[in-house]
Amino acid sequence: MNFDFKRRLAAEFIGTMLLVATVVGSGIMADRLSDDTAVSLLGNTIPTGAILVVLITILGPVSGAHFNPAVTFAFLVKRTFPASEFLPYVIAQILGAISGSVIAHAMFDLDLVQLSQTVRSGQGQWIAEIVATFGLVATILGGLKFREAAIPWLVGLYITAAYWFTASTSFANPAVAIGRAISDTFAGIAPASVPGFIAAEFVGSLIAVIIFTWLLEPSRSEKGNMAA
Amino acid sequence: MNFDFKRRLAAEFIGTMLLVATVVGSGIMADRLSDDTAVSLLGNTIPTGAILVVLITILGPVSGAHFNPAVTFAFLVKRTFPASEFLPYVIAQILGAISGSVIAHAMFDLDLVQLSQTVRSGQGQWIAEIVATFGLVATILGGLKFREAAIPWLVGLYITAAYWFTASTSFANPAVAIGRAISDTFAGIAPASVPGFIAAEFVGSLIAVIIFTWLLEPSRSEKGNMAA
Amino acid sequence: MNFDFKRRLAAEFIGTMLLVATVVGSGIMADRLSDDTAVSLLGNTIPTGAILVVLITILGPVSGAHFNPAVTFAFLVKRTFPASEFLPYVIAQILGAISGSVIAHAMFDLDLVQLSQTVRSGQGQWIAEIVATFGLVATILGGLKFREAAIPWLVGLYITAAYWFTASTSFANPAVAIGRAISDTFAGIAPASVPGFIAAEFVGSLIAVIIFTWLLEPSRSEKGNMAA
Amino acid sequence: MNFDFKRRLAAEFIGTMLLVATVVGSGIMADRLSDDTAVSLLGNTIPTGAILVVLITILGPVSGAHFNPAVTFAFLVKRTFPASEFLPYVIAQILGAISGSVIAHAMFDLDLVQLSQTVRSGQGQWIAEIVATFGLVATILGGLKFREAAIPWLVGLYITAAYWFTASTSFANPAVAIGRAISDTFAGIAPASVPGFIAAEFVGSLIAVIIFTWLLEPSRSEKGNMAA
Repeated sequence: MNFDFKRRLAAEFIGTMLLVATVVGSGIMADRLSDDTAVSLLGNTIPTGAILVVLITILGPVSGAHFNPAVTFAFLVKRTFPASEFLPYVIAQILGAISGSVIAHAMFDLDLVQLSQTVRSGQGQWIAEIVATFGLVATILGGLKFREAAIPWLVGLYITAAYWFTASTSFANPAVAIGRAISDTFAGIAPASVPGFIAAEFVGSLIAVIIFTWLLEPSRSEKGNMAA
Repeated sequence: MNFDFKRRLAAEFIGTMLLVATVVGSGIMADRLSDDTAVSLLGNTIPTGAILVVLITILGPVSGAHFNPAVTFAFLVKRTFPASEFLPYVIAQILGAISGSVIAHAMFDLDLVQLSQTVRSGQGQWIAEIVATFGLVATILGGLKFREAAIPWLVGLYITAAYWFTASTSFANPAVAIGRAISDTFAGIAPASVPGFIAAEFVGSLIAVIIFTWLLEPSRSEKGNMAA
Repeated sequence: MNFDFKRRLAAEFIGTMLLVATVVGSGIMADRLSDDTAVSLLGNTIPTGAILVVLITILGPVSGAHFNPAVTFAFLVKRTFPASEFLPYVIAQILGAISGSVIAHAMFDLDLVQLSQTVRSGQGQWIAEIVATFGLVATILGGLKFREAAIPWLVGLYITAAYWFTASTSFANPAVAIGRAISDTFAGIAPASVPGFIAAEFVGSLIAVIIFTWLLEPSRSEKGNMAA
Repeated sequence: MNFDFKRRLAAEFIGTMLLVATVVGSGIMADRLSDDTAVSLLGNTIPTGAILVVLITILGPVSGAHFNPAVTFAFLVKRTFPASEFLPYVIAQILGAISGSVIAHAMFDLDLVQLSQTVRSGQGQWIAEIVATFGLVATILGGLKFREAAIPWLVGLYITAAYWFTASTSFANPAVAIGRAISDTFAGIAPASVPGFIAAEFVGSLIAVIIFTWLLEPSRSEKGNMAA
């Protein structure tokens, strides 16, 4: 493994770690401080959106700042990411996500590894994760096409919205889902609910790639038709 | 219909769909989680403002990202949008808005189509919609004139403000009003209240076009006077 | 009066009107919807910060987007604004502020003109207004010097902060203070408290001009010393 | 001392003063207005993030806008800040922080100098301050490397997140910790807890310098390896 690739994996690890530390940590803080669940969700949403802008800006130039197997998967399907690097990226993301939960627990004096009791399952939740991940990948593909420098903002703002408009509060990220499974706190998800979420997330990513590739990138034959 | 126009209509459809899914979905989430209506409105406002920045950035270069018949109407009046495309645009926006409500309901395990019981009517509400749409169209015209790249932000921020300063929480969008009529949730509007809102919105749009065309674009005769 | 100057006055009028409509209107909305005053202040703060970004962006290129006699005064002292235009600007701003309150009242079905009962007086309040206006003018002078395109954002963010860190919730604007005196709502100020606020605001503006002129613009003799 | 250096120290003093006035002042306001501690923390967080964007934009070109000994220390370790200026910078920052608390107290009619009773101590708090300062310095180093113009935003957003995801609400600043020790209000910290915080903050800064120097700046030998 050359040093450049090691650095990219380190960036994916650190970025996903800080992202999950923020999601889990702010969830604990917000839940402790309020009896109003919507206030707690605001205290969970705003930090998550904010840290995404920061992390994608400072680590994007190193690794692409995916922090998310469903995003890496989208680039794989679009053939803009090498297949040989898919598994190392995903492993770095999952290890980062787990570390993020552990760090959040350490800061809040909780058991470092826990099993979440929060069941998140059923048709509505799965539709929500499909929609959430569809929107996230659409945001990234559209951003890459038209305003690359704005992507950190677009992703931060999209997740800010998706926390609220999707019934699942938008995990939209298989690695983060695994990291949140070991936290029995506000942001947790029962391990048994994780596979359904992960499946829905890859489905949403794939739908976004199909629709937005058509929407954003005219094929040759279509261009021919347009001229007709 | 050529492929380019099909894509533009698809962009209006998808954008309006995700906008209404956000408005209705975040309204449901916020209303469920809080007993404090102002907290719920914050949980409805912040996602709506955020998703507007995203959607206008990624779909603006495709279709102009109107998502709103009152905006398309403003460009029609200013003769910067072809009359022949007005109706298709409006239909795509309305279908998108309806789909957005349906998707929100699907995510939250609610009946897919409902009739809102929330009466929004009376002089104050109609003045509010005139003001809300006046401000929205003024924002877009001013942005186009002076800082086109900032328009996604300007619209997101304007709507963030207008949710609160107008008595109607600023629908400012005939298609979205129709989409919200089929949702008996926080963001709903009784079908009987919709025509009044739509009329007020077109009035507000027209006033903005008149005033801001004068304010932003000196006519020739005025230029003559200025030199005097 | 030539057409260009008429337009500039119209821009100051419209901008201050929409600003005060937002301050007063969002205050009414927030106060009605919540029993938690901090939640109401959030619902008052976020719209105000947001609309400032919008209004300064779309009207700044027309009139400078002062919307504030204490800001126009700062430019007068710095001799970058003509003395002959000071009074017309201030009158346009005051008329705009009054109109803004009236519009807010119309939207919320309240008496169009009211007298506020909210006494805002005493040493702490006056210090707060000095600090608030000092910070606002410093923000504008620093922005003009180093990042002119960011000024709409800087002012919006500054006021967002100042609503909370100053004991007066940062009026920082003599015209807006007058406009808020005719509104017996959340954002109101008793007419008898207005003169103290206005005096403090001009003092804060003057201090900012003095300190930030020194801080940002080396004089010739100092440059000489620096070379020594 | 030449005039340029005097100005830089003045900028550090004024910036840290306004930063701490915002942290302490908004804490007092938010605490007075709400019984919900999470709402109060929102009312403390949003102004702090907002004012950081403003202060770093308008004072960054003068002094670098550190406002923070742990940040100045990071640049010292990286040898991009002269050792001879370290102590003057830190003194200006501490004096600014103290003045900021005093001004906040003056505005809110409180005793100008107080001793905080809020104990903030223990392993979780210290880990939190290490993480908080690590993240802050990482944000600055990454921003300097890839998007210097965005640093005001990145720091404002990072602190917005860190208020919530770290158990200590992220002081991350030895000067600010000292300034908050003389305020027995929402944002206060007992003087006895300050040394532990300061130590943790310098540790976090050092770790960030080590890791992010490796991550962002390939050394020559590594470059050689990469070519192999």
